[in-house]
Amino acid sequence: MRSDPRCAPCLLNRVLYEAELSTTDKELKFMAIQGGIEFLRENFKPGTNAIQISTGIHRKAYSILGDEDPYREKKAESNRIAAAMIPTVREYISGAKPEDRFRKAVLASIIGNSFDFGVQGHKVETENFDGFFNELFENGLDVDDTDRILELARNGKVIYLCDNCGEIYFDELVLEQLKEANAHVTLVVRGGYILTDVTMEDVARMGLDKKVDIVMTTGSNAIGISLEEAPEELLEAMRGASVIISKGMANYEALSEEDFKPIAYLLRSKCEPVSQSLGVKKDMNVAKLYL
Amino acid sequence: MRSDPRCAPCLLNRVLYEAELSTTDKELKFMAIQGGIEFLRENFKPGTNAIQISTGIHRKAYSILGDEDPYREKKAESNRIAAAMIPTVREYISGAKPEDRFRKAVLASIIGNSFDFGVQGHKVETENFDGFFNELFENGLDVDDTDRILELARNGKVIYLCDNCGEIYFDELVLEQLKEANAHVTLVVRGGYILTDVTMEDVARMGLDKKVDIVMTTGSNAIGISLEEAPEELLEAMRGASVIISKGMANYEALSEEDFKPIAYLLRSKCEPVSQSLGVKKDMNVAKLYL
Repeated sequence: MRSDPRCAPCLLNRVLYEAELSTTDKELKFMAIQGGIEFLRENFKPGTNAIQISTGIHRKAYSILGDEDPYREKKAESNRIAAAMIPTVREYISGAKPEDRFRKAVLASIIGNSFDFGVQGHKVETENFDGFFNELFENGLDVDDTDRILELARNGKVIYLCDNCGEIYFDELVLEQLKEANAHVTLVVRGGYILTDVTMEDVARMGLDKKVDIVMTTGSNAIGISLEEAPEELLEAMRGASVIISKGMANYEALSEEDFKPIAYLLRSKCEPVSQSLGVKKDMNVAKLYL
Repeated sequence: MRSDPRCAPCLLNRVLYEAELSTTDKELKFMAIQGGIEFLRENFKPGTNAIQISTGIHRKAYSILGDEDPYREKKAESNRIAAAMIPTVREYISGAKPEDRFRKAVLASIIGNSFDFGVQGHKVETENFDGFFNELFENGLDVDDTDRILELARNGKVIYLCDNCGEIYFDELVLEQLKEANAHVTLVVRGGYILTDVTMEDVARMGLDKKVDIVMTTGSNAIGISLEEAPEELLEAMRGASVIISKGMANYEALSEEDFKPIAYLLRSKCEPVSQSLGVKKDMNVAKLYL
């Protein structure tokens, strides 16, 4: 996806957000913002890849803040809230008709995609996540290609691109459904700390490596995936996949103009530019397959 | 007031806001944002005056957009909504005890200060302004120095610095109370179009010149007042005033570190940096006197 005019203030707000997570030093916050402005002045041009801009500005902010992981507490908080909800959601899924279980697990993992702190115009519901979850779960998917996604995944090779902490607990339920469908699953997490994204630490803590066939990383802490920084094995696996299941906006922004197909984007549409690009309204639960 | 790290993303959001008011041309929006980023890179430094930054960035955006008044429709909308409310509010005031009327008029004009479109984290209630107004009117002032303000104004020389359209209809009720108290009133409006601020056009349309003793302008379209651009007559009048009544955040930002006293700031605190500077919470109704 290309940068939209609306991306610049949102990115600068997010730099401010992570500066405030990282430090109480007002001068340092000022420097982080100034670094973000400097980066935007050099790089924010029509036609630039949205992910290149967001990766660059956050790396610069982290470096100025001298903090390799400003979101560490937010990640832990997301994980706590999500983990507490899982036994209930597991019952929702096992109580559903067999043909609905994949859809329900996907829906849960898309609601989990709302664990995305610092997106302008998007509030993470931490006070009453149960209520928020149940309301959205009741509403269901706004775009629902899950039957066709499952069909491609069954007995096939699935690449599952993770997004946020918290969300990953719901992803686990989808992974279980994929294994039920006899898919060979390659789980992909970020190669380094960025925003609230899942890394190998989360995989290890949750023992997800035992639930899937292979775990890979994106090779770097780029937002979504940088094709320049990704290991060749990952790109090859993506090229040979029966279906790529891509979680969240960042992975969408990274891959929407690339040639990896079939690809299914599972996300909650949390900002206008991404929603427009997908042809959906903001705040929708989207499971959209591109063949 | 000095610039705060939080000002930069907010200003850039406001440039985006006015670009979206002004044009549907995505390239032009991009150019306005890039102009804003460029301006911030050159000028956004710790210790800079907040008003210098906001004046400069909006002037640049207007110039790139080729639009001398992007907020014209928002101003008309604010005026319509406010004017429709005035007969009711006039009754509230005339129904109050005489010693409460100034306070009630001030409160109304502070609620009117919520007509401020494009401030990040602040939503202007246009759908149900009546309900919003009545709720806030019921709650009253959070900081209330109105008795002391009126004491200074009585039989004295008052400089009344206006802020937004819409709000100006409620200001008229305060002006009436000031005239009741036999004050000599100098009304000050912006010298040119900026944001939703009141200009001579509004004064003429409403016939406010007949309600006060003198009308002056700030001499330019600077946000708040630029002391460099203001006519000497205005600065002299401000120096000789029994009390300056300053409406809204921009006038506060412009004058909070200057030496014009006594000065009363009447505003709704719509952003964190201004609220902190005033020592109040966000979204408070503030009538604070500095001697």
